Amino acid sequence: MAKENLSIPRGTRDFGPKEMMVRNHIFFTIRTVFQHFGFAPLETPAMENLNVLTGKYGDEGDQLIYKVLNSGDFLSGVEGGDFEKGYKPMTRKISEKALRYDLTVPLARYVVMNRNTLTFPFKRFQMQPVWRADRPSFGRYREFYQCDADVVGTKSLLCEVEIMQMIAEVMEKLGVEDYVIKINHREILAGLADLCGAAGREADMSVSLDKLDKVEWPVVAEELRKKDFSESFIDQLNDLRSGLLEFGSAEYKQLTQKLRANDLASKCIIELESITTWLAGFPKVLEKLRFDLSLARGLSYYTGPIFEVVPQGVKVGSISGGGRYDELTSVFGVNGIPGVGFSFGIDRVYDLLSELGKTEGMPSSSSDVLVVLFDEPQIPYYLKLLENLRLAGVACELYPETAKLKKQFAYADAKKIPWVLVAGEDEIQSGLLTLKNLSASTQETLSFDQVIEKLKS
Amino acid sequence: MAKENLSIPRGTRDFGPKEMMVRNHIFFTIRTVFQHFGFAPLETPAMENLNVLTGKYGDEGDQLIYKVLNSGDFLSGVEGGDFEKGYKPMTRKISEKALRYDLTVPLARYVVMNRNTLTFPFKRFQMQPVWRADRPSFGRYREFYQCDADVVGTKSLLCEVEIMQMIAEVMEKLGVEDYVIKINHREILAGLADLCGAAGREADMSVSLDKLDKVEWPVVAEELRKKDFSESFIDQLNDLRSGLLEFGSAEYKQLTQKLRANDLASKCIIELESITTWLAGFPKVLEKLRFDLSLARGLSYYTGPIFEVVPQGVKVGSISGGGRYDELTSVFGVNGIPGVGFSFGIDRVYDLLSELGKTEGMPSSSSDVLVVLFDEPQIPYYLKLLENLRLAGVACELYPETAKLKKQFAYADAKKIPWVLVAGEDEIQSGLLTLKNLSASTQETLSFDQVIEKLKS
Repeated sequence: MAKENLSIPRGTRDFGPKEMMVRNHIFFTIRTVFQHFGFAPLETPAMENLNVLTGKYGDEGDQLIYKVLNSGDFLSGVEGGDFEKGYKPMTRKISEKALRYDLTVPLARYVVMNRNTLTFPFKRFQMQPVWRADRPSFGRYREFYQCDADVVGTKSLLCEVEIMQMIAEVMEKLGVEDYVIKINHREILAGLADLCGAAGREADMSVSLDKLDKVEWPVVAEELRKKDFSESFIDQLNDLRSGLLEFGSAEYKQLTQKLRANDLASKCIIELESITTWLAGFPKVLEKLRFDLSLARGLSYYTGPIFEVVPQGVKVGSISGGGRYDELTSVFGVNGIPGVGFSFGIDRVYDLLSELGKTEGMPSSSSDVLVVLFDEPQIPYYLKLLENLRLAGVACELYPETAKLKKQFAYADAKKIPWVLVAGEDEIQSGLLTLKNLSASTQETLSFDQVIEKLKS
Repeated sequence: MAKENLSIPRGTRDFGPKEMMVRNHIFFTIRTVFQHFGFAPLETPAMENLNVLTGKYGDEGDQLIYKVLNSGDFLSGVEGGDFEKGYKPMTRKISEKALRYDLTVPLARYVVMNRNTLTFPFKRFQMQPVWRADRPSFGRYREFYQCDADVVGTKSLLCEVEIMQMIAEVMEKLGVEDYVIKINHREILAGLADLCGAAGREADMSVSLDKLDKVEWPVVAEELRKKDFSESFIDQLNDLRSGLLEFGSAEYKQLTQKLRANDLASKCIIELESITTWLAGFPKVLEKLRFDLSLARGLSYYTGPIFEVVPQGVKVGSISGGGRYDELTSVFGVNGIPGVGFSFGIDRVYDLLSELGKTEGMPSSSSDVLVVLFDEPQIPYYLKLLENLRLAGVACELYPETAKLKKQFAYADAKKIPWVLVAGEDEIQSGLLTLKNLSASTQETLSFDQVIEKLKS
């Protein structure tokens, strides 16, 4: 095929060295924090059996699952008549496998398959790509990484405490200072609906209420009216709704006092407050928490505290979120396994760091130093020099050809290699090396030890 | 679906925490070495356009490529007649994308698409899974990782020198001592065929010769006979063939003297010897190299030095291999881009470390320490203790429930967490902690600083 027609599938991306250096820094930061908190790595196959995935994400989700064609003669089990029945029944005949859509269903599948040998509470993290046949748009891709951490098999709210600490530590390590962690409780929403006089209608209410971070109240009220909520309900909800509240603030106390009139809401507030009480010794974490009665989060399997991490003063929206669920594995017929989990969206974190200008300072080249190649007879000397640099922990490379100095410098410059080391015949004789800093356009003549000292400083 | 029917696709695997700890150690080791030598990371999408992949791996390879069904109504472009033509023509109508089969074709595609902005020589590494619809068997999977490093855009044999050094460094860091790096030159094989009187038939000859590491010479000779090689050819080849030879040994000198009678072979020997000469200062690398005239390696795109890393005294075969190619991108219509590359097979490396018993000593849990939870009022104390452990670089976790001591110890034991820290009311009062080593069944009463000292030693 001709070079002009080359492309990659829409909604997918190549990540070149510069982007990968930043992405790997993000992965490394998150992985280190997860492991520091005792979460252990898990990886599952990209392909799952199609029947493991279908029916778990709703009808719309099912349509977005990438199906893999059976290998060999995939038509062997198809009869003439099947073809006329349309593509949906046909899919099952020619495809048995599909690409994973998220990391939660594979986790549930793994837990069920290994439930007799796993040690519970099972703390696992998983950082792998997922695929969705969504319409690609700005910030929405067909292949993207999820970084999930879950504790499966305990109802302890200490897990939520730990997750808040992990979020704060990841953010600190990434240098992001201005953000909030919105927190709510899934069952408060049931209490709220009840309290306003529409018991059982919390799902309808929440979908509208959740939009309050994007639109004004009258728009939400109008939507509720269209859903046949009464004026009295809307008035009472208007009275109770609020923006983000600091735990313990006067407004928070006022609101929760009203909510406590409802038993379910009262129980939820006690749960949320046990989290904040345990975090009392961690003001850096606690100061980021905001009670957000409007927060609903889409996924219907949440049953306890839910939360979302939202950077402030930037265009990028939520970069992380999660919550507690009572029944992870009941879709596979195993009941009574509760847990809590959350996920970082790597692409969002990347966009955030870009917007904050944090990616500029990160290394964009693997090498710290390029050693210039003058001429062939000196190659054994250069190779030893490189070995000694590496033994001192310096990533380095030798220009592989005896090209003009100008070309070798241009190479270092284009690859953003910060230092160039020049050792011509004179330098080799004298035992001194010339170290150039490309961005500062400075150079010094130094001994090997001085070079190492300079590079490490 | 019921729990009893749950499974993962044949030939794919879940990697639980214990395996992942070892796998991540292998990935980390290889990645660190690659980066230390100035190789920069690249990632490409799992899905490539089908026409990028087809025709690159031969007819048999094309059959092993996993095709992804078009999303939405994939039958919309299909007519009644298409169905009768069989599955091969049908594939193109209902599938536009496929899962990558290796990392080399995606690299070539990336280089062509970015050839005007990339800095050459382009040194990249890539560690991602690939998929092949192969028949699963022992050690052969349908999803497996490849770890490739390539230098694209130079004919310099210094790249080969660097690759030999990288292999030796990876092996040293993984603790593997007993292995050889077999090395040959693709064009020597042409010279050899010529020398024995069958010029141009090196491909046929090599396929048979390559089997010498598994079968005896008479079997190979018989196969050559069946391919219509003359008795005189077979006799001459028998005279020249040899086992693995140390460079510079008497046998090596004898053999290469004979080979030098052919101009092409002579040129190749000079190339190989420039690699070994440059490595003269690196006896630890050089002592691993073996000239192997039988080594052919399957891939037809190699044109220069080829090599394979073979551990000795174990069942696991080659764990790494690669070679030089003159034309990486000509399949996409861009000529004149030479390079050299090699790949580690992670699964083979894993099997090797298992066979050598190296995986035993590796951590199999993320946490170094489990802090026992006595009762709820002490939780704030425990959380601070955990924070201080983490600040000292210790990965740790708190048991999330107030369960019986026995249960908490059993948890640590099952998860292979080496240390358990007990702080009851007495300990908290006295400022001393009880540190237990589970495998040694010992315990000591220590101050926090002493605990850290102990854990770090």
